[in-house]
Amino acid sequence: MGKRIAAAVLFMPLLLGGLAVQAQTDPLPSWNDGDSKKAIVEFVRTTTTQGSPNFVPEVERIATFDQDGTLWVEHPLYTQVLYCLDRVPAVVKAKPELAKVEPFKTVLSGNREAMAKLSMDDLMKILAATLTGMSVDEFRAEARHWLDTAKDPRWKRPFTELTYLPMLEVQKYLRANGYKTYIVTGGGQDFVRVYAEDVYGIPPEQVVGTAGGTKYGYAKDGEPFLTKEPKLLLNDNDAGKPEGIHLMIGRRPYAAFGNSTGDRQMLEYTKAGAGTRLAMLVLHDDAAREYAYGPARGLPATKVGTFTPALDDEAKKQGWVVISMKNDWKRIFAFEQ
Amino acid sequence: MGKRIAAAVLFMPLLLGGLAVQAQTDPLPSWNDGDSKKAIVEFVRTTTTQGSPNFVPEVERIATFDQDGTLWVEHPLYTQVLYCLDRVPAVVKAKPELAKVEPFKTVLSGNREAMAKLSMDDLMKILAATLTGMSVDEFRAEARHWLDTAKDPRWKRPFTELTYLPMLEVQKYLRANGYKTYIVTGGGQDFVRVYAEDVYGIPPEQVVGTAGGTKYGYAKDGEPFLTKEPKLLLNDNDAGKPEGIHLMIGRRPYAAFGNSTGDRQMLEYTKAGAGTRLAMLVLHDDAAREYAYGPARGLPATKVGTFTPALDDEAKKQGWVVISMKNDWKRIFAFEQ
Repeated sequence: MGKRIAAAVLFMPLLLGGLAVQAQTDPLPSWNDGDSKKAIVEFVRTTTTQGSPNFVPEVERIATFDQDGTLWVEHPLYTQVLYCLDRVPAVVKAKPELAKVEPFKTVLSGNREAMAKLSMDDLMKILAATLTGMSVDEFRAEARHWLDTAKDPRWKRPFTELTYLPMLEVQKYLRANGYKTYIVTGGGQDFVRVYAEDVYGIPPEQVVGTAGGTKYGYAKDGEPFLTKEPKLLLNDNDAGKPEGIHLMIGRRPYAAFGNSTGDRQMLEYTKAGAGTRLAMLVLHDDAAREYAYGPARGLPATKVGTFTPALDDEAKKQGWVVISMKNDWKRIFAFEQ
Repeated sequence: MGKRIAAAVLFMPLLLGGLAVQAQTDPLPSWNDGDSKKAIVEFVRTTTTQGSPNFVPEVERIATFDQDGTLWVEHPLYTQVLYCLDRVPAVVKAKPELAKVEPFKTVLSGNREAMAKLSMDDLMKILAATLTGMSVDEFRAEARHWLDTAKDPRWKRPFTELTYLPMLEVQKYLRANGYKTYIVTGGGQDFVRVYAEDVYGIPPEQVVGTAGGTKYGYAKDGEPFLTKEPKLLLNDNDAGKPEGIHLMIGRRPYAAFGNSTGDRQMLEYTKAGAGTRLAMLVLHDDAAREYAYGPARGLPATKVGTFTPALDDEAKKQGWVVISMKNDWKRIFAFEQ
């Protein structure tokens, strides 16, 4: 045995041990070292170390995540809006009289310029027509089928692959430390529930979203079923987020993650609780790997994900941590090598 | 060492082993042997034994329990109604003009005969005045204080001690077998959440109940808070139970427990699912140890807990198991020896 080989064998346990320690101590391998990563690790240490002055009992460990723009790509259009637009032909097939009525006529034309000019009222009509009127089981099957087949035009992949790997790591890390992870989304609760379990490991009961009423009734064979009604119960945006959290969870979160003005109240409500609380905002500043938008940082504004100057000011004032996709994230998607 | 002692030592492991086995095999010690107990044990075995044709993955194991009359005493008045009546003087003190207005005038008079004649509309006015208009934190503190001090007139104990021990055992048994236990109550969601964790080991996010809206706002010091609004979001009775289950849980339960017509749709919806499902109804037929009511079994009807002939017929038709408090329960309350 040569001297160098002997030395290598001698140090092997040390090397392997070192690797094991590193694996244990880096729960966030897709994050660069920096203030954001440090804030997350420090928050978990402080709230879960027995004897820490800000220790949080396990039953109270709640973390809430906005979805669009925080957990997955929201640009240039919310995935659910794409789903609704894609559903229009099927809806018109079932109700042919809609073909001549706006906004369905414009959507059927496929004229993207005309579609871009549709108003919020038009969009609401499309959402109502494509998200209500069917049973919850039919809706689930339709949404599931679409998610299995539709692809994002830029990455040519199913939308469910466009989740941010660093955020998936944060969710797993929090769960490994006794936190219950919730999605609190402005998107449709029933829509997000279709894939949240597969994609995030978050069961339907931990998805809070914009929710409509359902109506209990019976099929001809007497089988009971629930029909999705065009009646809004919870608009889970802005102040609707803490209101929805109270309705569906009943506890104030210890950690909250968002990316736009729609998340402001959720972060504010979270931070206003006693003890150590974590509030974070994802900033889309990586045009090469994802998108760059948000007027607060001199990036172009977009219809979605408005990271405004006021939100930026409040983040600084309240001690919310801004996550720079460009600087804080080593990898953005799991499919990237 | 004498022969008998030697024999005892020899058999000690066997005896201890035997005790351990018995402890393991009777998760429901307050239940008499019979069809009800058998149905529960058989349900758990079938749905949790790997390889069983009706095995249910752990994430899908949901069990829902009505509260009043199913988990604790509801007779002669729902506990929450007593709370609301007791709160009337404090409400009138804050708004003295109410003293001369019905139904507050009657409640303040203390005239039980007149109070018994109050209409449902009157009751709604009392609920609105005593359950809304304050912050969720104020409400929680008030309800907590009342629960700590008020006592049931018959047993002279806090209402939170009037839970049925056999049902607490069922909840623990289901949880020990991977089931997530929910309360699905016609009572106020916020009210039940105040004590459900201490009393049942059920956290606020697993309490579904009749729920009003809240409004997000700010105190003078800028602190955000939620105010309870007199706006009904979910009437969690009858068809409202499966609708509430869809809204708050998003999965169909595998087991559901109730005691009155208000639980009919929940049990029906539960049983209509694929695989093995358990639906049970508590029958109040024990006038000596608790109360006896329910016209279906020739017992006197009461305003609450209507176990009607139609409900009885449906139970037989649908294979719902009726729990006889008198025959199925060895002990009713934990405080009984």
